[in-house]
Amino acid sequence: MPSLTLAELQARLGGSVRGDGSVLLDAVASLETARANQLGFLLGRKLLAQARSSGAGALIIPESLGEPLSQPCLAVANPHASIARALALFYPEASAAAGIDPNAHVAADCEIDATASIGPGCVVEAGARIGARSVLGPNCVIGARAVLGADCHLHARVTVQHGCVVGNRVVLHPGCVIGSDGFGLAWENESWFKVPQVGRAILGDDVEVGANTTIDRGALDDTVIEDGVKLDNQIQIAHNCHIGKHSAIAACVGIAGSTRIGAYCQIGGAAMIIGHLEIADRVTISAGTFVAKNIKEAGTYTSVQPLMRHGDWLRNASHLRHLDDLAQRIKSLEKQLEQP
Amino acid sequence: MPSLTLAELQARLGGSVRGDGSVLLDAVASLETARANQLGFLLGRKLLAQARSSGAGALIIPESLGEPLSQPCLAVANPHASIARALALFYPEASAAAGIDPNAHVAADCEIDATASIGPGCVVEAGARIGARSVLGPNCVIGARAVLGADCHLHARVTVQHGCVVGNRVVLHPGCVIGSDGFGLAWENESWFKVPQVGRAILGDDVEVGANTTIDRGALDDTVIEDGVKLDNQIQIAHNCHIGKHSAIAACVGIAGSTRIGAYCQIGGAAMIIGHLEIADRVTISAGTFVAKNIKEAGTYTSVQPLMRHGDWLRNASHLRHLDDLAQRIKSLEKQLEQP
Amino acid sequence: MPSLTLAELQARLGGSVRGDGSVLLDAVASLETARANQLGFLLGRKLLAQARSSGAGALIIPESLGEPLSQPCLAVANPHASIARALALFYPEASAAAGIDPNAHVAADCEIDATASIGPGCVVEAGARIGARSVLGPNCVIGARAVLGADCHLHARVTVQHGCVVGNRVVLHPGCVIGSDGFGLAWENESWFKVPQVGRAILGDDVEVGANTTIDRGALDDTVIEDGVKLDNQIQIAHNCHIGKHSAIAACVGIAGSTRIGAYCQIGGAAMIIGHLEIADRVTISAGTFVAKNIKEAGTYTSVQPLMRHGDWLRNASHLRHLDDLAQRIKSLEKQLEQP
Repeated sequence: MPSLTLAELQARLGGSVRGDGSVLLDAVASLETARANQLGFLLGRKLLAQARSSGAGALIIPESLGEPLSQPCLAVANPHASIARALALFYPEASAAAGIDPNAHVAADCEIDATASIGPGCVVEAGARIGARSVLGPNCVIGARAVLGADCHLHARVTVQHGCVVGNRVVLHPGCVIGSDGFGLAWENESWFKVPQVGRAILGDDVEVGANTTIDRGALDDTVIEDGVKLDNQIQIAHNCHIGKHSAIAACVGIAGSTRIGAYCQIGGAAMIIGHLEIADRVTISAGTFVAKNIKEAGTYTSVQPLMRHGDWLRNASHLRHLDDLAQRIKSLEKQLEQP
Repeated sequence: MPSLTLAELQARLGGSVRGDGSVLLDAVASLETARANQLGFLLGRKLLAQARSSGAGALIIPESLGEPLSQPCLAVANPHASIARALALFYPEASAAAGIDPNAHVAADCEIDATASIGPGCVVEAGARIGARSVLGPNCVIGARAVLGADCHLHARVTVQHGCVVGNRVVLHPGCVIGSDGFGLAWENESWFKVPQVGRAILGDDVEVGANTTIDRGALDDTVIEDGVKLDNQIQIAHNCHIGKHSAIAACVGIAGSTRIGAYCQIGGAAMIIGHLEIADRVTISAGTFVAKNIKEAGTYTSVQPLMRHGDWLRNASHLRHLDDLAQRIKSLEKQLEQP
Repeated sequence: MPSLTLAELQARLGGSVRGDGSVLLDAVASLETARANQLGFLLGRKLLAQARSSGAGALIIPESLGEPLSQPCLAVANPHASIARALALFYPEASAAAGIDPNAHVAADCEIDATASIGPGCVVEAGARIGARSVLGPNCVIGARAVLGADCHLHARVTVQHGCVVGNRVVLHPGCVIGSDGFGLAWENESWFKVPQVGRAILGDDVEVGANTTIDRGALDDTVIEDGVKLDNQIQIAHNCHIGKHSAIAACVGIAGSTRIGAYCQIGGAAMIIGHLEIADRVTISAGTFVAKNIKEAGTYTSVQPLMRHGDWLRNASHLRHLDDLAQRIKSLEKQLEQP
């Protein structure tokens, strides 16, 4: 790992040094575990006491923090972003050798940039294109005529199906599938009949897709994931969804077909959104929430059951089957009392 | 893409041409985007106005539609099925070359039909059998003694575990796993003890399994997916489940062990069904629904929370912990009012 | 399959033979299907009648069972554990040949124990270590410097990312991903910024991980799965979670970042647990339950909606949006009646 003084860090990250800029650092660590050669961080005031007693050699702190700390500090406008940049400096990604591994299987007519790296066990089918400096980890599959931009990083075992388009600086984690068939079925003679899915999945720039997440191709038109969208693990995005730019979606979320999510949305883990809905920009959906209607205004939306001890739940939940009866009985009591 | 006149389409799909059958078409498109060389479609009356103004060169319409349209039309009994067939004509699947790719690894004693196609990076273990015209995409794994029927299409990175049986015309999407071990555990000495899973997963004919869906093998007896069952992405089917014929299950559904789903059921996305249940034929389960008891009659069943603004939810949901108290208080009020 | 007499079984499993110990058995079967050469089993008294009429050649029964049965029996303290052991005897796992398959791609500086088996299509990156007798099925990927202990079994298409640590006797099912990046994002200039994830995922001994389950690496510190934890399919465990020893988690569960689950917990299928929580030891969480607060005491906890016919649900669920109003109206009625 590289070593940097706090002053050198300041030169790369901006902000201002408070205290001794010559302290030498070679790692980032949490306040509890950090040692003299490690950089700790304080995102807000909440852990101030812990920061005071931390063994970290230096700290990244918010520039708004007035209190002095005994450790040398780098005061910055956005500590979270600065610590992300510091991590990238201290833990540089292993660089992959440019070129096609002899154990990769690349069709003759692909266009693979000479600076791209294709790992062992990868299969790149006819007519696919892969941009500059993009790295494919082991055992990835790129379908026929699929296009990957520059500076992408596909971890191991990623699948991009035929004809799909992936932008620049896209990160795809193991097991994710881009462009699987949508669930399109016609009913005839008491059985289901597959509707061929001929649209594509299109991912913009700076998209990240988590492990084992699946994004279906469009039925006719395309499924679109706009620039800067971040998707966690095990998310399912059905055919013809449209996810607006810089929305972030946590793990285990499912979004059914043709739903449009606005820009700058945040969707909590395991939320489920049915098909053909419109969700406005800057909507926050709480974890575990079920969304079955359009959301037209920014704000936070929720629909979860509170946790109970099982005995309490048994006693309370049974009334959910009779809420309408309870409501009618209240109305009836009110009428009785109104009458003189 | 092939070009066809509307009359040629009629010859293949049936139905009757209204207007000029000589219009030449080479693609299918939605009403909004369709151009003069493209076939649009109208599934019902709902989008009639949009159909009238569509630039499509021709339209597939329901034969029950009385109103004339300016475009040439093919009037059919089941527009959804006809458009599925038209898509298959205009977008034929790329044919895979018969034979075993030199970069596939096939055990010596497998029976691979000479017309089957085994892609690069595939591993086919000892004693496996693969039927006529079946296609395995890149990096699939077929376990020892597994059997695949004819005309199957395994997309990239599919796993069929040892001894499992897959019927004819089965489509398996990337990352799906057929025949993983069920979650069988015995408790002994304060720790879990694995119960070997020695049953199989058996898939009938015309089954489709979505991306990253998992179907566990049986513990002793088999897990059975009957003919014509369609499974979307990221579904989990536990050991010894039995899914009746022509049932369709949307994405993110989980079905726990030994549950029997009837025939012709429809299960909405993210529904969760606990183990050892019986669900009758022709049951519809709404998206997001939790099923914890048998369903003995056809019909639609639901158990989801309505969405609220977070503030409303905070105010309302807290009462769910006290529903029983509310119900008792209503009863008490009723008694007070009964008394003279 | 091997053949064993009931007496030979007793010698291996313990317990006591009731009746003829010379009956020859070569398989395990359920009470309904078992034949004269097969071993059936009775876990408790519930299926006693069925056991009486079973065609099984012999039965494993609880030693506490007083009633005589016509079949020869092996009476044991823990029938579930004994039947698991019997299954392992009758259905031994296929042994994999030691060594590196010529179609595996192993970096030069790995340490692969000579008794380990590396299957075709596997990729083992630089500096990885694999212990004695561990078996990697086809197309697995082991990242740089990852460490696997002894006697592990990785089924097909498993990914262990760089630097992660897997204990001894660990079973990893197809498609699971150990050590994918956590969902760490900083917000800056109206877009998300990736926080490098530099911790590891650490799995203890005797852990089992189901098909397509994902376990994220830690952000800075490690994600830890303690000894004996059993994870079913399609579970998502986010960065920096800590799962206590011998906890069992059913399929489709999601656990958000930095949550600590105690030891000996049982989490039902599709339960969802938000981040930064503490769950005590020996907690049972019902299937489908949403957990949004700490659980400090052992016990069973639940939060699910009861299933209703869709019409009943429509009538009842609408009141959930107005529970607070109903509660206020009850309070107001009570006040009216209190007044003289």
